Amino acid sequence: MEEGLDRLARPFIHRLRVRYAECDMQGVVFNSHYLVYFDAALTELWREALGGYRLMLDQDIDLVVAEAHLRYKSAARFEDELTVEMTITHLGETSIVSEYSIGCDGTPLVDGMTRHVTVSRDTLKKTPIPGWMRSGLEPWVSSGR
Amino acid sequence: MEEGLDRLARPFIHRLRVRYAECDMQGVVFNSHYLVYFDAALTELWREALGGYRLMLDQDIDLVVAEAHLRYKSAARFEDELTVEMTITHLGETSIVSEYSIGCDGTPLVDGMTRHVTVSRDTLKKTPIPGWMRSGLEPWVSSGR
Amino acid sequence: MEEGLDRLARPFIHRLRVRYAECDMQGVVFNSHYLVYFDAALTELWREALGGYRLMLDQDIDLVVAEAHLRYKSAARFEDELTVEMTITHLGETSIVSEYSIGCDGTPLVDGMTRHVTVSRDTLKKTPIPGWMRSGLEPWVSSGR
Amino acid sequence: MEEGLDRLARPFIHRLRVRYAECDMQGVVFNSHYLVYFDAALTELWREALGGYRLMLDQDIDLVVAEAHLRYKSAARFEDELTVEMTITHLGETSIVSEYSIGCDGTPLVDGMTRHVTVSRDTLKKTPIPGWMRSGLEPWVSSGR
Repeated sequence: MEEGLDRLARPFIHRLRVRYAECDMQGVVFNSHYLVYFDAALTELWREALGGYRLMLDQDIDLVVAEAHLRYKSAARFEDELTVEMTITHLGETSIVSEYSIGCDGTPLVDGMTRHVTVSRDTLKKTPIPGWMRSGLEPWVSSGR
Repeated sequence: MEEGLDRLARPFIHRLRVRYAECDMQGVVFNSHYLVYFDAALTELWREALGGYRLMLDQDIDLVVAEAHLRYKSAARFEDELTVEMTITHLGETSIVSEYSIGCDGTPLVDGMTRHVTVSRDTLKKTPIPGWMRSGLEPWVSSGR
Repeated sequence: MEEGLDRLARPFIHRLRVRYAECDMQGVVFNSHYLVYFDAALTELWREALGGYRLMLDQDIDLVVAEAHLRYKSAARFEDELTVEMTITHLGETSIVSEYSIGCDGTPLVDGMTRHVTVSRDTLKKTPIPGWMRSGLEPWVSSGR
Repeated sequence: MEEGLDRLARPFIHRLRVRYAECDMQGVVFNSHYLVYFDAALTELWREALGGYRLMLDQDIDLVVAEAHLRYKSAARFEDELTVEMTITHLGETSIVSEYSIGCDGTPLVDGMTRHVTVSRDTLKKTPIPGWMRSGLEPWVSSGR
């Protein structure tokens, strides 16, 4: 699929500015905040692909995180403008695996992965990814790097 | 009331240890976290006075913050063990005014105030403080300093 | 001064999107995060006025917060795009008073004030606002609303 | 070594209470906060083993996180009292691998791993774990589970 091939070369990109409150005594972003940055990128991809995370919630679908992995290569600093590249690498029956690569001015800083599970918003029990959601996300699915 | 008089001299005290993630590039607690410390003290006072914040939620009562004020006198540092002193200074029809004083080893660090409003948990609309809640909190109400 | 008059009508504006991690069990932004939003606006105003907060640090000047006040009128929600309007209302010898007004789609949400003190970055002791900093900030100073 | 064997059966335990501000719209602890909980446990282990993280800083040694991994099994909720079990599973030349297991009332919630690297506090460059630090930490090193 042409669109899919295109996405392989062009992952979803979210830009953000590092806030003062996110930096610790070492003058760098504290390690936990990168998970917030991953989540902010996912929210933006969801808006692009599905019209917004809240629209998904309105359909009684929510996401819970089952797994996360981070590799810290270099530190982001206050006022740095970061790019969060995000690619969905697996869309299973109820699971969504995403890969992230955070950089600044071409320098790679943090790589990571999350595995989400789709649940009913009401019951928080696993529920299959609905068709409308799968087709909305599919253009952003890469077969991995 | 003897218990009330007693409370005047002895405000509710919550102790906590400053976390690394709460300290900024200046090596001190970032200013917003003191509102989290105030809130942690309120949760503990609620547990003592009412059996827990969640019990209040179960009765369809929740709190929203209407106002907050903070005066920063001196800085808390990583690993400092802080005492958060909290006194309720006003219990209105739907409003609860609390005063806080955070210190470390006898040094005053941050003073503050919050005004909460009681709301229905479902509708988030104002609702009067119920009798069981008022009588649970009353022993902790001081007429101010 | 024409430029000053202009600023009275047009405060500094910073736009940001509410993150999932900033919302609490009530589905609204937790009260402490507004202080982070205030700070993010200040960082952006500093960039516009002085070329960046880090440039100020390089001149051995830093800011500490001495006081903060917040009035919560209405709640911001996940994915809301907020505007933070910021005006400096007082530039003293060593103090900077700023007022903030956060809104969403024309609805006012949170008003607030901070008072910062300029300190030596090394010693964290009070130091007068240097001339280059005062002249950089002056166009953004309003005499209050 | 008897002490070491003892540690295998009894990892370091840090207890903490979930704060309201740490819970998200799902009513559970947002995923990034578990990294803060891991870090809080490390701080406490450091105090027990070395007299405090700040004492290590005074010796010009600091830690940076190189990798983190989390598996989320079940959700922690507001007011839950959590136990964070921490074991050091590897003390290398410059690296410290730790494993964590967070639970509540016997229910496992989140498992995780961090790999830290020892650096000079001044230069943030890698530096070998000093002898006094290694011998202080060794009683807490397990050969893995």
